[in-house]
Amino acid sequence: MTEDSAAAEKAFLDDLVMHRLLIPSGVPGVFGRGGVFEDVLERFDRFVVASAAGDGAEVLRFPPVINRRDFERSEFLKSFPQLAGSVWSFEGTHEQHMQLLAHVHDGRDWSGLQKMTDVVLAPAACYPIYPMVSGTIPPKGHLFDVFSYCFRHEASGDPARMQSFRMHEYVRVGEAEAVVAWRDMWVERGLGMLRTLGLPVGADVASDPFFGRGGKLLAVNQRDQKLKFEVLLPICSNEKPTAIMSSNYHQNHFGSIFGIKTPAGEVAHTACMGFGMERVTLALFKTHGFVTAEWPGSVRKILWS
Amino acid sequence: MTEDSAAAEKAFLDDLVMHRLLIPSGVPGVFGRGGVFEDVLERFDRFVVASAAGDGAEVLRFPPVINRRDFERSEFLKSFPQLAGSVWSFEGTHEQHMQLLAHVHDGRDWSGLQKMTDVVLAPAACYPIYPMVSGTIPPKGHLFDVFSYCFRHEASGDPARMQSFRMHEYVRVGEAEAVVAWRDMWVERGLGMLRTLGLPVGADVASDPFFGRGGKLLAVNQRDQKLKFEVLLPICSNEKPTAIMSSNYHQNHFGSIFGIKTPAGEVAHTACMGFGMERVTLALFKTHGFVTAEWPGSVRKILWS
Repeated sequence: MTEDSAAAEKAFLDDLVMHRLLIPSGVPGVFGRGGVFEDVLERFDRFVVASAAGDGAEVLRFPPVINRRDFERSEFLKSFPQLAGSVWSFEGTHEQHMQLLAHVHDGRDWSGLQKMTDVVLAPAACYPIYPMVSGTIPPKGHLFDVFSYCFRHEASGDPARMQSFRMHEYVRVGEAEAVVAWRDMWVERGLGMLRTLGLPVGADVASDPFFGRGGKLLAVNQRDQKLKFEVLLPICSNEKPTAIMSSNYHQNHFGSIFGIKTPAGEVAHTACMGFGMERVTLALFKTHGFVTAEWPGSVRKILWS
Repeated sequence: MTEDSAAAEKAFLDDLVMHRLLIPSGVPGVFGRGGVFEDVLERFDRFVVASAAGDGAEVLRFPPVINRRDFERSEFLKSFPQLAGSVWSFEGTHEQHMQLLAHVHDGRDWSGLQKMTDVVLAPAACYPIYPMVSGTIPPKGHLFDVFSYCFRHEASGDPARMQSFRMHEYVRVGEAEAVVAWRDMWVERGLGMLRTLGLPVGADVASDPFFGRGGKLLAVNQRDQKLKFEVLLPICSNEKPTAIMSSNYHQNHFGSIFGIKTPAGEVAHTACMGFGMERVTLALFKTHGFVTAEWPGSVRKILWS
């Protein structure tokens, strides 16, 4: 990161805090949201729902924690071990409780008194879907509307790169052709939606931040096969724009892992597309200013109608 | 728990799953929510907001993870170590990543490859408020409206005792008298609101499930001082009704810990009251049936107006 973009991130965050849109928690990337921020986020969410209303997606809402066994099978840890969060708890005796309190009181590490539980934090809103649809899908496949808090363990000074944030996603399960056509439709639709909100967005082929030595090769493959598209906007940096919407075509990855089959007995393909809800909201404030009453009439008409 | 109430819990959960109101995750107490469940929860939430609209609370929304240092200071671990959830992540090398994957692949314990992070799961929606208002409060104190996903590490077959659930809370910070009067007002208001929804609720002095040997004494003290009130309703058991709303008067507990002072220089008192959003929603389905179109007109008028 250049010094310029670090300074731009800090200036934007300072403005957001001053307008009580974000409330710092003391942990980088973890913020409270002010009422106005939340109102804009919810209004954008209603716009998303209205835009997709004709598709007939089934609405499901999942909590921020998911089944650890399913998560282990998903292979997220293969690609992004550094981003995952597991949940731990205390399962000890009275004596161990006394130890725990002494450690906490003295400011010592109390991690030795925690045990891993059966849940991890959801890394994306769509993760509970794939194990859920294990088995044979209906002839037209599945379409789901999911929304949840997600966690990515990455400390950043960029307010648009939070550790805990919301994702509104749609997930398609079906035959390869139908899934790809659906993905292509959504990239166009999403671009159109964001442009009507006055956001100067563009779409591009993208790759994920795969971990470790083999990561670069995985990213090159992902780009070559055009599996990931992002809708990008410069929030804090022109050189490194922020993805505010993205789509992933997983091919038969989740279908193979979770035994999802088409009626013809083939492994089903899957794709998801999602809006980063905090990122879109930040993009709106960055583009149109901190006072929503002064936003362009065309934008207000969509969000406040 | 009696066999009868275990059977009642199972029967109720089976019905909820059959009507696609809850979707099991494989982990007890962790569920997806169907669209109809979510719609009722949101409608009840709007009723809460409308009922409190005249109070002038500041709306703040916090993510499901909070600052670990603040959490350590809160003394939650003193009373409820067994319920808390800490968040861990991988911070290792390429070689350790290979180890991690081998452990996961072989179904072995991979907890040795995780490290405690700077965040824990929020045990209640109000926890981020107390460190935030450290310092001198305004003459009339503070009033906040908070809502978040909370985590309690307790496996249960009771669908009304989830590990991951939402709480809509109001939090009052001020002088003792004002705080107690506010708490009393809310217990009455809450009872009235829930009764207009046709829920056969009653209020009672209550105590928390304090951990360990000293726990019983803490609970007795809490009851004697009437610090906790619960609004109760039989969801799965008549003998052990479920709390769907509760209030806690913390006296000067958080004020002392986080250095919250009145303008006169006294330690501020705090209280919170909150609705268990999933519990209220389940209570509505239990009381009025699984088909919302068939709910009493008086209830539909409030929630669907």
